[in-house]
Amino acid sequence: MKIGILGSGNVGAGLGLLWAKAGHEVIFSYSRDEAKLRHLAETAGPKAQVGTPAEAVAQSEVVMLAVALPQLEDAIAAGSPFDGKIIITCVSGLRPDFTGQTIGLATDLTSSVAEQVQRLAPQARVVEAFNLTFAEIIAAESREFGGHRPSLFYCGDDGSAKATVAGLIEDCGYDALDAGGLRVARSLETLATAWVQFAVASGQFPTVGLKVLQR
Amino acid sequence: MKIGILGSGNVGAGLGLLWAKAGHEVIFSYSRDEAKLRHLAETAGPKAQVGTPAEAVAQSEVVMLAVALPQLEDAIAAGSPFDGKIIITCVSGLRPDFTGQTIGLATDLTSSVAEQVQRLAPQARVVEAFNLTFAEIIAAESREFGGHRPSLFYCGDDGSAKATVAGLIEDCGYDALDAGGLRVARSLETLATAWVQFAVASGQFPTVGLKVLQR
Repeated sequence: MKIGILGSGNVGAGLGLLWAKAGHEVIFSYSRDEAKLRHLAETAGPKAQVGTPAEAVAQSEVVMLAVALPQLEDAIAAGSPFDGKIIITCVSGLRPDFTGQTIGLATDLTSSVAEQVQRLAPQARVVEAFNLTFAEIIAAESREFGGHRPSLFYCGDDGSAKATVAGLIEDCGYDALDAGGLRVARSLETLATAWVQFAVASGQFPTVGLKVLQR
Repeated sequence: MKIGILGSGNVGAGLGLLWAKAGHEVIFSYSRDEAKLRHLAETAGPKAQVGTPAEAVAQSEVVMLAVALPQLEDAIAAGSPFDGKIIITCVSGLRPDFTGQTIGLATDLTSSVAEQVQRLAPQARVVEAFNLTFAEIIAAESREFGGHRPSLFYCGDDGSAKATVAGLIEDCGYDALDAGGLRVARSLETLATAWVQFAVASGQFPTVGLKVLQR
C-alpha cells in the first residue's frame, strides 16, 4: 500500500517507519525541516521517499494526518484534493501544559477533531486511529508489553476505509478495535486525552499501555 | 476485615457481596429502602449485617462510600465520625444523560470528588478506587475476561491505607495498580468518566474491561 504522511513529528515519523518496515511504500511530507524528511526517508529504506504534501496525497491510497491541532487547516489545504483518499487522523484537542500536572482536555463531547477533518476534506474517507498510544510506544522496538499487544480503537463512517486502517494498525503491532462511526471520535478523543493526562499525572507516562478486554 | 458499606446501589451492593464471599464481615447501610439492605445482608450470608451509617462506620476498619454525588455530603454526615478509618470512594462527577450519546464529564482537573471527601471527613484516610469498572462487571460471576483480570487504579496519601485497599481490590478479582497521591484522583476520575462515556458511545457498555500494560 502507498501511504502519505503529513507531519514529521514523533507520531508521523514513527508510524511511517513502522509501515515502511512492514513493506508499505511511504512518502514523508509536511515539515518545516526538509532535511528531517530526507533523513526519515533514508532511515525507512528504499521504498520510502520525500514529497510535497500534494504529492504525498496524490500518490497514496492512505494519508496519515499527524500534525498538531494549530496546523490542521494548513496541512489539509496543502494536501488537497483528497478525492476518495483515506485520511487517518490522530490529531487531538490536547492542550499540553507540563508546567503543572494538568493537560487540558477537549471534552464538551459535542464535536471532535476527526469530524472537523471530514468537514475540511469532504471528499476524503476519514478514520480516527492511533490516538490511544504514545509516540514513545510507536518508536519502541516492539509495541508489546510482556507479550501483550496494546489495543487501539478506530472509528469512521466508511466500512472499507475502516477495514484498510484496521490492517495498518495491526501492521504496527497493535490490536485494532472498531469503535463505531466517526461521531464516536468525540468520545474516543476525550478518552485518549484523558488517558495521556492520567499517565502523566500518575507518573507512568510513557511506559504504560492499554489493553481492552471484551466479553 | 470489617467493612462498612454506605450506599446500596449496584456498586455498593455488588462490592459488599464480593467482600463477604471473600470472607470479610460486611455491614450494609445507607439506603432509603431498609428491606433492600436486609435482603443484601441475607444474600451475603452469616457474616453480613445491616446497620445505621454511624454503626457501619464505627464497627468497621474500612468504609466503602458508594453513593451518588448528590448524596455525598449527607452520607458522610450520617456516617461521622470517621477518625482514622479508611474511606474508599468511587464517587464520580459523571452526569448521566442517556438521552443522547453523551455523559457529562467533570474535567477541569482542578478538583476531584475524592479530595472533597477528604475535606468533609478530615480524620479519615481516603483512597480512591473502583471507578474504572462498571457495576455490571462487579455483579458478574467473574471479573475475568477470557482469563484476563481487568486493572483497577487506586490513589491516596496514606501508604498503609492504600496497601489495605489494594488487598480488597485483589479480593474482588481485579489487578490493583497504585496511581499515586490523592491529587491524582483529579485525573483518575476524569479517565474513569471518559472510559464509561466512550464505552456507551461505542456501544460496548458494559461488556468491556480495561487492562493496563506496564513496562
